[in-house]
Amino acid sequence: MDDSSEAYLCINDPNGNCSESHAVLEEEEEEEEEKFRRKLKYFFMNPCDKYTARRRKPWKLILQVLKIAVVTIQLVSFGLSNQMVVQFKEENLMTFRHLFLKNFSRSSANTHAVYTQHDVYTHITYTVEQFLMLPSITVGNHEYEKSGEVYTPLSICQQFYHNGSLSPANESFHIDTHVDEECSLIYPRQPFSTLTANPLNFTLHFERLLAVTVKFTLKSINLETVQYHELPDCYVFNIMITFDNKPHSGRIGIELDNDVQINECSDWTVTGASPRDMYIMVLFDVMVILILLLSLLLCTRSVKAGVLLQFEYAAFFSRRHSKRVSFSERMEFISGWYILIIISDVLTITGSLLKIIIQLKAMASYDLCSILLGTGTMFVWIGVLRFMGYLKKYNILIITLRAAFPNVIRFSCCAAMIYLGYCFCGWIVLGPYHTKFRTLNVVSESLFSLINGDDMFSTFKNMQQKSYVVWLFSRLYLYTFVSLFIYMVLSLFITLITDTYDTMKVRER
Amino acid sequence: MDDSSEAYLCINDPNGNCSESHAVLEEEEEEEEEKFRRKLKYFFMNPCDKYTARRRKPWKLILQVLKIAVVTIQLVSFGLSNQMVVQFKEENLMTFRHLFLKNFSRSSANTHAVYTQHDVYTHITYTVEQFLMLPSITVGNHEYEKSGEVYTPLSICQQFYHNGSLSPANESFHIDTHVDEECSLIYPRQPFSTLTANPLNFTLHFERLLAVTVKFTLKSINLETVQYHELPDCYVFNIMITFDNKPHSGRIGIELDNDVQINECSDWTVTGASPRDMYIMVLFDVMVILILLLSLLLCTRSVKAGVLLQFEYAAFFSRRHSKRVSFSERMEFISGWYILIIISDVLTITGSLLKIIIQLKAMASYDLCSILLGTGTMFVWIGVLRFMGYLKKYNILIITLRAAFPNVIRFSCCAAMIYLGYCFCGWIVLGPYHTKFRTLNVVSESLFSLINGDDMFSTFKNMQQKSYVVWLFSRLYLYTFVSLFIYMVLSLFITLITDTYDTMKVRER
Amino acid sequence: MDDSSEAYLCINDPNGNCSESHAVLEEEEEEEEEKFRRKLKYFFMNPCDKYTARRRKPWKLILQVLKIAVVTIQLVSFGLSNQMVVQFKEENLMTFRHLFLKNFSRSSANTHAVYTQHDVYTHITYTVEQFLMLPSITVGNHEYEKSGEVYTPLSICQQFYHNGSLSPANESFHIDTHVDEECSLIYPRQPFSTLTANPLNFTLHFERLLAVTVKFTLKSINLETVQYHELPDCYVFNIMITFDNKPHSGRIGIELDNDVQINECSDWTVTGASPRDMYIMVLFDVMVILILLLSLLLCTRSVKAGVLLQFEYAAFFSRRHSKRVSFSERMEFISGWYILIIISDVLTITGSLLKIIIQLKAMASYDLCSILLGTGTMFVWIGVLRFMGYLKKYNILIITLRAAFPNVIRFSCCAAMIYLGYCFCGWIVLGPYHTKFRTLNVVSESLFSLINGDDMFSTFKNMQQKSYVVWLFSRLYLYTFVSLFIYMVLSLFITLITDTYDTMKVRER
Amino acid sequence: MDDSSEAYLCINDPNGNCSESHAVLEEEEEEEEEKFRRKLKYFFMNPCDKYTARRRKPWKLILQVLKIAVVTIQLVSFGLSNQMVVQFKEENLMTFRHLFLKNFSRSSANTHAVYTQHDVYTHITYTVEQFLMLPSITVGNHEYEKSGEVYTPLSICQQFYHNGSLSPANESFHIDTHVDEECSLIYPRQPFSTLTANPLNFTLHFERLLAVTVKFTLKSINLETVQYHELPDCYVFNIMITFDNKPHSGRIGIELDNDVQINECSDWTVTGASPRDMYIMVLFDVMVILILLLSLLLCTRSVKAGVLLQFEYAAFFSRRHSKRVSFSERMEFISGWYILIIISDVLTITGSLLKIIIQLKAMASYDLCSILLGTGTMFVWIGVLRFMGYLKKYNILIITLRAAFPNVIRFSCCAAMIYLGYCFCGWIVLGPYHTKFRTLNVVSESLFSLINGDDMFSTFKNMQQKSYVVWLFSRLYLYTFVSLFIYMVLSLFITLITDTYDTMKVRER
Repeated sequence: MDDSSEAYLCINDPNGNCSESHAVLEEEEEEEEEKFRRKLKYFFMNPCDKYTARRRKPWKLILQVLKIAVVTIQLVSFGLSNQMVVQFKEENLMTFRHLFLKNFSRSSANTHAVYTQHDVYTHITYTVEQFLMLPSITVGNHEYEKSGEVYTPLSICQQFYHNGSLSPANESFHIDTHVDEECSLIYPRQPFSTLTANPLNFTLHFERLLAVTVKFTLKSINLETVQYHELPDCYVFNIMITFDNKPHSGRIGIELDNDVQINECSDWTVTGASPRDMYIMVLFDVMVILILLLSLLLCTRSVKAGVLLQFEYAAFFSRRHSKRVSFSERMEFISGWYILIIISDVLTITGSLLKIIIQLKAMASYDLCSILLGTGTMFVWIGVLRFMGYLKKYNILIITLRAAFPNVIRFSCCAAMIYLGYCFCGWIVLGPYHTKFRTLNVVSESLFSLINGDDMFSTFKNMQQKSYVVWLFSRLYLYTFVSLFIYMVLSLFITLITDTYDTMKVRER
Repeated sequence: MDDSSEAYLCINDPNGNCSESHAVLEEEEEEEEEKFRRKLKYFFMNPCDKYTARRRKPWKLILQVLKIAVVTIQLVSFGLSNQMVVQFKEENLMTFRHLFLKNFSRSSANTHAVYTQHDVYTHITYTVEQFLMLPSITVGNHEYEKSGEVYTPLSICQQFYHNGSLSPANESFHIDTHVDEECSLIYPRQPFSTLTANPLNFTLHFERLLAVTVKFTLKSINLETVQYHELPDCYVFNIMITFDNKPHSGRIGIELDNDVQINECSDWTVTGASPRDMYIMVLFDVMVILILLLSLLLCTRSVKAGVLLQFEYAAFFSRRHSKRVSFSERMEFISGWYILIIISDVLTITGSLLKIIIQLKAMASYDLCSILLGTGTMFVWIGVLRFMGYLKKYNILIITLRAAFPNVIRFSCCAAMIYLGYCFCGWIVLGPYHTKFRTLNVVSESLFSLINGDDMFSTFKNMQQKSYVVWLFSRLYLYTFVSLFIYMVLSLFITLITDTYDTMKVRER
Repeated sequence: MDDSSEAYLCINDPNGNCSESHAVLEEEEEEEEEKFRRKLKYFFMNPCDKYTARRRKPWKLILQVLKIAVVTIQLVSFGLSNQMVVQFKEENLMTFRHLFLKNFSRSSANTHAVYTQHDVYTHITYTVEQFLMLPSITVGNHEYEKSGEVYTPLSICQQFYHNGSLSPANESFHIDTHVDEECSLIYPRQPFSTLTANPLNFTLHFERLLAVTVKFTLKSINLETVQYHELPDCYVFNIMITFDNKPHSGRIGIELDNDVQINECSDWTVTGASPRDMYIMVLFDVMVILILLLSLLLCTRSVKAGVLLQFEYAAFFSRRHSKRVSFSERMEFISGWYILIIISDVLTITGSLLKIIIQLKAMASYDLCSILLGTGTMFVWIGVLRFMGYLKKYNILIITLRAAFPNVIRFSCCAAMIYLGYCFCGWIVLGPYHTKFRTLNVVSESLFSLINGDDMFSTFKNMQQKSYVVWLFSRLYLYTFVSLFIYMVLSLFITLITDTYDTMKVRER
Repeated sequence: MDDSSEAYLCINDPNGNCSESHAVLEEEEEEEEEKFRRKLKYFFMNPCDKYTARRRKPWKLILQVLKIAVVTIQLVSFGLSNQMVVQFKEENLMTFRHLFLKNFSRSSANTHAVYTQHDVYTHITYTVEQFLMLPSITVGNHEYEKSGEVYTPLSICQQFYHNGSLSPANESFHIDTHVDEECSLIYPRQPFSTLTANPLNFTLHFERLLAVTVKFTLKSINLETVQYHELPDCYVFNIMITFDNKPHSGRIGIELDNDVQINECSDWTVTGASPRDMYIMVLFDVMVILILLLSLLLCTRSVKAGVLLQFEYAAFFSRRHSKRVSFSERMEFISGWYILIIISDVLTITGSLLKIIIQLKAMASYDLCSILLGTGTMFVWIGVLRFMGYLKKYNILIITLRAAFPNVIRFSCCAAMIYLGYCFCGWIVLGPYHTKFRTLNVVSESLFSLINGDDMFSTFKNMQQKSYVVWLFSRLYLYTFVSLFIYMVLSLFITLITDTYDTMKVRER
């Protein structure tokens, strides 16, 4: 509480009374103290008061407001251009699945599987045939990759245990766990390419088979961007279809996934529409970085000033009252808001640098960049609360949250113990009978959702009823968990917040 | 608070005490003041008290009650007749989708797409065939549109870039972004109409193709209304099937949409049932408008009286106490309820006029009309709370909400900052991995739903697990967001309301 | 509050002070008053105190406990036997749908429809063929109904407007709204029954067609009950398949529904298992009725005693204090619990009588019987709270709810106005764009669910985005509704309850 | 409250004042009392204080912390190895369903059924054919079971009533409820095995048919474990396909289920990877058991000490004050935490023993073991709260929950009565019209979910609208239930907790 800290300093006076203690002091000391006190007061002033007191223009405030604007503009422009890329990637993935997977349908996307040997062969043949016919069937502009003058081939590989004989009927097995790999390459558009019934020139050893992988590379150009005055990019899709037989359960799951590389096209002309100059974008990013650096500089300076003042205060205080200044009092000098701004500045600067690199097509770590920019922008917006705090009555949220923080942490620790207990217990007992309790992480998510009243009936309903004891246990488990957490723990939590609010309200008066 | 405002005037007396200040005044002044005070008192009286005091019949009150009745009747009758129109439109759209789209099924309605060149041609041929055979297959009464004696044709158009060559393998492209259009018309029931295998007399340039659109017009009559004693209308459906290849991703999405025009049929006879006279409906609407105009007039008069009285009071007050009347005190003279009534009257009158125009088939802006009528009626019903406020103890809801309003706004501003921060951050980071974070607007909706405990587990579950960092970030993001908003922000909000209620309860005593 | 009513009588003493007023009275009057006061006190005593005071056995209490037991047993046995009937009916309906509807699948159950003339004919032919082949295909024991020696036929009827010609192209129509019906009968197992390609000996006039209905009757026996030692019943299924063309929208919806009659089989032998004697069940029901009658009698007597005492008290009070007893004071003499018991007794007696009639297969109004029994039993269980109230600290729920009741009603009235406003507005504006706002009733249900945090994201998501204005309106509508109701109205409601609880707690001390 | 119990003993002093009562006592008595008081004080000390007071190392505390670690490690390792087994079982079940059930699809898993006689025969034939061809179609390592040199056959059995003739048309039936069974065996890989069109050498008597069951046994080896350095196990799957015709409703439900036995394979060699030594795991379990036994011993000793001290205290108290010690005061001596630890220790020891037995493949009661281990671990984690209680301010959750407990129980009893009433009523009335009200247990689950705001709209929506009275009743039922429970009962509950928190906070000060 910046505004109350002067009073605070007074309250901590060991003589218990501010005015009295002054009377005892010598005059020159008094003067010095007065000066220091004014310095302190000025330090803890907010920009409005500073302006009123010394007519100092609130440059820092203006800089921060400017920062919010440019950072948000940068984020939104990045997000919008990202959206198009994401959509193009996703539609292509969907296209590949429909083209190369047999009987693929959107609803069975995650459970696409085959169960017989014949289906495995048919499925592979289908994929290869579709690959070879690609130029004449695709409605997009997909093409094979070329290395030199030759198209890169499709490769089919099988991984299998080096050696092994299983005889489940005799309950005996002999296995060599070294994994071998056999591959065969199929070139598109080859002269004399005659596709035989079985494109594999090897047979699959189902007993020892671990996986069959079909890999090939396609290239494409994202033309849609032309309409939004951006330059089309060249995409390289490394497609991999996996027939997964690791569990040897009789079910071979089929998955198609792709890795995408985005390059600037090497040779292009666009007539009729001028793609926006990318370098303007980069320039804007550089401007953002400069503003952020300035903000970072000013904040670091303020923090440094705070630290220095704190030492001065400690020295002054120990000299006068022969007492050490407590840690929490020292912390008063370092404004949490500055720390927040510094963190957000650092994050956003790093993110912006990454963004420039991405835009120059030198790298493509979208994820890291978006996390940095996103978190940075979030902190910038949360930082707005600081300016709101300058207005009276607007800072009730922040004050209460800050005051409630220690209690909330303590309370959460206790509640977490019970929560953890339920997590472990639910995982081990209900895991085999309910998909929402399969892994520890999912258990935690599902219990958290239950606390907030989500998906409760379906959790009850989808419990498999194979074992009566487990079924009964699951009911007991769910009823007690929900009752305990929603009705008691959550209620107590709310009471904690309410209580803090009341305390803060009384103190504010 | 209308009833407490006299006391309020007294409280604001600068002498601090009402009765004392009177004693000082001269007699004639006192008399004048007494008169003015009585005038004020009468102004702030509610209808019941007015009736008790001066036997004035509460005409305005009766008018408002009558207004509620007729406005609601009007809305319900409008809604009921609208329902039939909506159902007819929707069933027709469903019919068109089943008739003209190949392999259409309700579950894939939003994701109907084709992936191969052959499918595109087949699909277009199918649509054209179904169109040509329409009269012999439809079970409804759809017919082709006629312009003069000739049926209007079906048109197939392809839009494509004027020129262009793409070679993704070489990472090079040359494109002219001017869009050309080629169309071909197919007339139904033509002599010598021989449908060739390919109804298009052009080939599709898939590489440059932007979209294929099939357009045609059908007419129909909504006979069902006859049974509800309404006159059947004639419908014109402008159907447009779009094969969208803008993204060039290899997936051509197919959509069928229609524009509907509703006309009065030009020539009709109905035997055996007399359709209700439409003009009675219009007459009722006119009556509604008259009542609303009267209500509007009276309320405007009251507001005007209030404004005049306020000036008089200000003059009186400054003359007596040599002080300016504060803005909030002036506002006391303008009843918020009257403003609400005036707004709702204006909205409903505009809506009713639009409704008459629609019923006379001169226009068909159902949406605007329904928004006007709907919002008007909503305000009329909310206005009922005013009458409830005349009864003691019934106005706790209104009083508390009004008193809490400034705090709620302030609090919401602060909470909105954090909310915005989370929105931006979620959009940029999770957008590529979860459909619920694709656009800023959807992010806001999904976060709002999360706050209210909806769809939480599915939000956790449907997060794509491609990047581990993003996956971890998403967990952190969701857990902190839910915890912060449900457990803290919402709790504080509730405390705010509770606190205001307690304050109001004490003040009411 | 029964126990506090003596104190209450005192508080209402016009002299304001109980003990003082006594001093003034004459001695004989005092004695009389003392006697009356003791009578009053005894009347308001609970059974435990009565037992302590006068050693009176709590017969009524024991009777009530007995009643709870027998009523619950009766309900559970009724429910369990009902479950089997419901399951049999439902499985048969599912069977009929799979047998007689072409391409029926469970997921499309509500949207089964055809869109072309050819499909209508094919579908009818399919149904008739399946009907004629029934004995050789069904795996259940379905048989045709026999009237005398002849099997009752399947009837196909078409309803159509008597006359009419429509020409949507010319926007003209001439219609005679009298509805004609044409039927054709098809007898199963007839000699020389040769099913022609079209089983209808009439053609469908699609233009004027309202509906085609296929009706036939099948009989079956529910054998499963034998295993639970109950007698199998004979079922008559009147099956009706409706091809609904009322909207003339080009979509003919197909629905199969059946009416079920349950009869006692006329002629049966069961070897190897003795079906339980139905008359024991009836005897138990009669016993239940007798117990309920006794309870009803005793409660009526108590209520009567209360009414008499109230008159006596009023006379005494007006004689002594020359004042009328207020209505609320009079009401104290009539215990709400007795009224509840009387209502529940009457409901359960009526229900039990109906149940006996149903068990004797004389009638089959399961619904009415279940509502009567269900509501009766619910009230009986809620009545248990009365006994809990005898124990201190257990009645906080009841006391608080009763005390909060008037405020809750008042508050609900106000909230209902806003709710109604939103209902009307949502229905008229969003109805055409969202299925959850189609009818007023569904709007209310969906808003109620929203208040409780259910289905929020799907409500946002499924809003059709055809008109931008409406889309914007829908967002505004949903955000304000949820914010207003969940965060404000609900919060205030909870505060109301909390407040009442605090008041009651202070008063209880 | 362990720390406040000395004060507690003082408060209960009959003289009302602690210090005064001491003054009266003789000196030697005083000394004795002082000694006893110190003993008491030491007993109620927490480990930190004990360490401070007597430098006693907190061995017990260290043991408990160690216990938490090892128990959690044990649980997690058990859970992880279980996960693989569960997945293998489930994938196999899925495989069997896809291989042996005709037209099986994942979405219709629970509703797989046939409706015609022909389908039943076809389905059985399909299953048998797939079984005979298994070795050449499966992609897993499934094999037939062998008993000696002969493969065990597939058996098809039909169960039917011994005798019976039904004539629903005449409403007559004659049935002998003795159930007969006819079986036929089909051997795989037999010489001269010629599969006829109908593999059954009997015909099905559909009229009397109860069920057809197809049973066979397959064996498999779970190879995946090799990759995680565990030894592969041999699995025996007893597969049973049931065609259920018990209801005779014309629908024969088909279900495939399997029983799984897990054996250690008899003869194996693994090259290239050393499977982890199972005996190390067993050793770890033994260590866990030893630690738990030690913890159990120490806790039992503490409880015993408490009981002895309690007797001593009672004797001392009655000698000094001639009064009996109340039960609740006696209970203070037996710490609830110790009881919790003892329970958790006993559960975990039993669970660990079972786990060892399972790991040695002697038994396979995973369910019981997981319930024991899970519940034990949950209690161990909840027990951590005890250590948190040693730190000030951390025990608010535990203290409040403990203090609120009696009120919560009382309140829940009252609420349960209303809840039960609604359960019974909903079951009996709405059961036939809504699947969520089919059985009493499901009714309770669905009402519980409704209270927490889950699945509300779908509950409203899926109510069958056959009977208008029931439909109306359902609306009334749902609206009142939700309003009553969410808005009133739940609010009161929260108030109860809040109230207790306030009380505790004041007492803690």
